[in-house]
Amino acid sequence: MEPESFFTKNTKAALKHDPPGEWMPPVPDHSIPLNAGYPAHSLVPYEEMNEAVKDLIEEEKDLPFQYLGSKKVNTVKKFVRERLAERGVVLLEKEILVTAGAIQGIDLIARTFIDRDTWIVVESPSYMEGLETFRNYTDHYITVPIDENGMQTEELEKTLKDRKEKNLPMPKLVYTIPSFHNPSGTTMSIDRRRHLLELASEFDFLIIEDDAYGELYFGERPTPIKAMDSGSRVFYIGSFSKIVAPGLRVGYVAARSDLLEPLAWFKKDLGHPFAEATLGSYLSQTDMKKRFEMLRKVYQQNCKTLISSLEKYMGDIATWKNPSGGYFVWVHVPGVDTSKILNEAMQAGVAYVPGKHFFVHEQEGLSYLRLSFSYVSREEMVTAVEKLSQVIKKHIDQ
Amino acid sequence: MEPESFFTKNTKAALKHDPPGEWMPPVPDHSIPLNAGYPAHSLVPYEEMNEAVKDLIEEEKDLPFQYLGSKKVNTVKKFVRERLAERGVVLLEKEILVTAGAIQGIDLIARTFIDRDTWIVVESPSYMEGLETFRNYTDHYITVPIDENGMQTEELEKTLKDRKEKNLPMPKLVYTIPSFHNPSGTTMSIDRRRHLLELASEFDFLIIEDDAYGELYFGERPTPIKAMDSGSRVFYIGSFSKIVAPGLRVGYVAARSDLLEPLAWFKKDLGHPFAEATLGSYLSQTDMKKRFEMLRKVYQQNCKTLISSLEKYMGDIATWKNPSGGYFVWVHVPGVDTSKILNEAMQAGVAYVPGKHFFVHEQEGLSYLRLSFSYVSREEMVTAVEKLSQVIKKHIDQ
Repeated sequence: MEPESFFTKNTKAALKHDPPGEWMPPVPDHSIPLNAGYPAHSLVPYEEMNEAVKDLIEEEKDLPFQYLGSKKVNTVKKFVRERLAERGVVLLEKEILVTAGAIQGIDLIARTFIDRDTWIVVESPSYMEGLETFRNYTDHYITVPIDENGMQTEELEKTLKDRKEKNLPMPKLVYTIPSFHNPSGTTMSIDRRRHLLELASEFDFLIIEDDAYGELYFGERPTPIKAMDSGSRVFYIGSFSKIVAPGLRVGYVAARSDLLEPLAWFKKDLGHPFAEATLGSYLSQTDMKKRFEMLRKVYQQNCKTLISSLEKYMGDIATWKNPSGGYFVWVHVPGVDTSKILNEAMQAGVAYVPGKHFFVHEQEGLSYLRLSFSYVSREEMVTAVEKLSQVIKKHIDQ
Repeated sequence: MEPESFFTKNTKAALKHDPPGEWMPPVPDHSIPLNAGYPAHSLVPYEEMNEAVKDLIEEEKDLPFQYLGSKKVNTVKKFVRERLAERGVVLLEKEILVTAGAIQGIDLIARTFIDRDTWIVVESPSYMEGLETFRNYTDHYITVPIDENGMQTEELEKTLKDRKEKNLPMPKLVYTIPSFHNPSGTTMSIDRRRHLLELASEFDFLIIEDDAYGELYFGERPTPIKAMDSGSRVFYIGSFSKIVAPGLRVGYVAARSDLLEPLAWFKKDLGHPFAEATLGSYLSQTDMKKRFEMLRKVYQQNCKTLISSLEKYMGDIATWKNPSGGYFVWVHVPGVDTSKILNEAMQAGVAYVPGKHFFVHEQEGLSYLRLSFSYVSREEMVTAVEKLSQVIKKHIDQ
């Protein structure tokens, strides 16, 4: 019996790519994980979670452990609505779908709107797990480069006009991370956000706005594209992974209800009442504005440390942009294939994510790497960047 | 902008069916929910869960709240392996995929192996959420009736031979709930289990064995089909929903690794580290054999009460089979459309699930209804059955 003979066409096409999560080999214990795109131990409110669970069970007994789940789930929706309203996005309750992290949101949208004939637009670079998810559905990509003001919508416009003229297939969806972009750290300007919306209307496509880092601004708070979405073409994706805890796996999608409804259809029972109730209980006993302020301060200081280490140790061999929020610094090291020296770097004591994994066309990312300032201590960051610079210099000298 | 113009062909086909969960209108507070397919409040170990979370966080701090999750997740796999080994199913670790409940397992299998051209075999009746999930992928069903010994594999054989002769499309998958079937309560005989495996080999199909109720036997412990699966054609699906708590949403799929691998591919990040770690912590501090014994005793006694109430109040108007395990009694009420009298019954104080929702061809199930003995108290069961009999009798008399 050959498994392949049972696979669908889509499964066969998906399996042609690298397996999910292949971008990182195991990081040795002695390596400082600048690859880690998740919060530091001290930023995960685990003691508060313990309290949240205790209160939840005292109050609701078995409810959070039943299918129907706890009423606290409504606290999650309420929080999302209130928070987004402050950011200019006014939503009805039926316009929010709580998901198992941002990635389930992306997956459900892909599942509803993308098949192997569908063309989609992604930024170049883009979130590697987003790309992995899309590859499960299609291999037809239009890539749009990013500069210091985010996605170059002028380039997108040119491409779309050109494709239309040539009668080529037009894209149905544009996937963007407009604020504190993963991996590049850049933020899309307000003009380009407007321009993207105009293009959506002109060329009739939908937009996935992945705003996982939106609350983690160091300076000006960016306005979500969704806040200007008069044509109702935007799926806004939010997440509690970066602001509370990734392991809870709670995120959400906000969109007009007739676009959202089929997502709920495919989601079915794939929720997780207990984790959602735990989050609800946590939110109801936490001053989230204060928490946001604390997180912004910590990450901003972390970012400063990482940037000054880069200036000190890698100013002569690399370039990068200063992010104004989020988790990441995107480093360009001309002349070095960052995927080839990863193992050596890890042996030397520092891990990062090689740039190529963030590109549809991997060769475009060979000389890039992503560093995270969310997880390791500031002391470790300095040490790690020094070590990284030594490894890179060896290869530039050769 | 018309959402439909963006939907894939599959989405459009899926949306032609009723939305998920449509089988039950809201049950009024004063109604006794004999529809409820989940454990009674007192059978959900919520205090122990509180302890489990407390111990987990004391021991592992932020780990269960990170992407990578806690080591306790391995406790879940270890438990599954040991328990299944006792039941004759010997598995390697890589042959188990932990999922968000049994339904995610079914969904991932469907996603990997079924597209709109695929034919599948389901029992008639079958698990309504299973049917709902399959409808998201295909509309091509071969249905096989059930009798007191489970799926009539002789009928399946006839159908398959006939289709082969006529050069009709052959099914790729057979979905069965061989033990304490939902909704019919029946159990497939050992001879038919063997026969099904022979047919799988002869007609080259795969089998999904949904064993969500397998531990809840009142008499003899059934041998899983997977235990006899020398040809490695069986996906065994297990769940902690009925034996620990549904709201944790933890289940698993066991299959040969090359069949399982693409499921993990599509699953990606859709796990839930915190819930799995909580379950792992709970399992490591619980005598599960003792818990199984307790559950079997309670459910068996519940079942007896429900059956004797049926004998007392409905012996003259209905027939049913005595289940030897599980959660459900499947009642046949000739001459009554159970979906039409549901609202009246709920007003009178009793809810059930109308039989039609368990059938691909709904009209086959009009005179059936599913009663659950898992959730309500024995006193309530008696009252509920009496009320139900009164409503039904009114409609038979007419």
